[in-house]
Amino acid sequence: MYDGIVQELIDELGRLPGIGPKSAQRIAFHILQTPSFDVSRLSELLREVRERVRFCEICGNVSESETCAICRDPRRNPALICVVEDAKDVAAIERTREFRGRYHVLGGAISPIAGIGPDDLRIQQLMTRLADGTVQEVILATNPNLEGEATAAYLSRLLTTLDIAVSRLASGLPVGGDLEYADEVTLGRAFEGRRRL
Amino acid sequence: MYDGIVQELIDELGRLPGIGPKSAQRIAFHILQTPSFDVSRLSELLREVRERVRFCEICGNVSESETCAICRDPRRNPALICVVEDAKDVAAIERTREFRGRYHVLGGAISPIAGIGPDDLRIQQLMTRLADGTVQEVILATNPNLEGEATAAYLSRLLTTLDIAVSRLASGLPVGGDLEYADEVTLGRAFEGRRRL
Repeated sequence: MYDGIVQELIDELGRLPGIGPKSAQRIAFHILQTPSFDVSRLSELLREVRERVRFCEICGNVSESETCAICRDPRRNPALICVVEDAKDVAAIERTREFRGRYHVLGGAISPIAGIGPDDLRIQQLMTRLADGTVQEVILATNPNLEGEATAAYLSRLLTTLDIAVSRLASGLPVGGDLEYADEVTLGRAFEGRRRL
Repeated sequence: MYDGIVQELIDELGRLPGIGPKSAQRIAFHILQTPSFDVSRLSELLREVRERVRFCEICGNVSESETCAICRDPRRNPALICVVEDAKDVAAIERTREFRGRYHVLGGAISPIAGIGPDDLRIQQLMTRLADGTVQEVILATNPNLEGEATAAYLSRLLTTLDIAVSRLASGLPVGGDLEYADEVTLGRAFEGRRRL
């Protein structure tokens, strides 16, 4: 439709999540036509982010060093671990300012349809973290949907062998939704009302 | 919220049109977590597109050379010019395959609120193109909203001094909408039913 490279940019932008062909076109023209838009900055950041960002060796959260800022912070309670599916969920929970423990990012949820089983998640790493007896409570904060509930149920069974309290976020969250879209108040209330499993 | 560079990328993506903070976060994590996503290709394209793409010296459409592919095409009718606000509109009209003339991109529409007057648009260039008598008809295909109608009315008055037919796209287009979002059939019909001013 457009001369070579403009169409290539539109196609490439269209491969990003949530960006359809029309949005991709709109963004491409914005980049082309807005002299004030710092395209080299965005171009540079895209490259750098993949080079520099890695995942925390302890919890699996995104980090620019071996361990993330939360795992390094001595003020965070090491006896309390909140298990989430994704690093985006860490950010969502941090915004509530309700939680002062640490995290464990699974990297997804159990989903037979998508072919994701327990071995594809960072569950072994979680068990290793729990082995030394420091952790007193594990809060299962997987998404309140089918896969998240299945993952929570699986972990709950797995953790009964250990002497650790296991809880699940309260059902203040809308069922079927995505944890990262919850507002601060709802998510904060869900933390307060977490029920023991 | 996130360690430095991830947040920087989210902020930068959030400056693109139609991308809110949640979408920006989703895109940033997609880039981070999808090894198959060719981030260097996108990074390269962003840089190249600004370096290589310019605007056709004749019609103002996007182009990788001095003149665009449409202006260079000898099969396109030089007696017929379709005036549009934006290069995105050229692509929308090309998709209808109804129009075999050439284009003139104004680079916007008259809008007293946004401080855009006739002198800010490529109207002088249009008058120069019309001066040699080749063009027999000008189709005004500015958007069917307040600014687009005002621009069409202005151009229509301006062109009465020349011996050129002036038409406006038929009102098959939904009023108040944006030309680039029209579907092919509606836009094609609007071309067929264009009325003389």
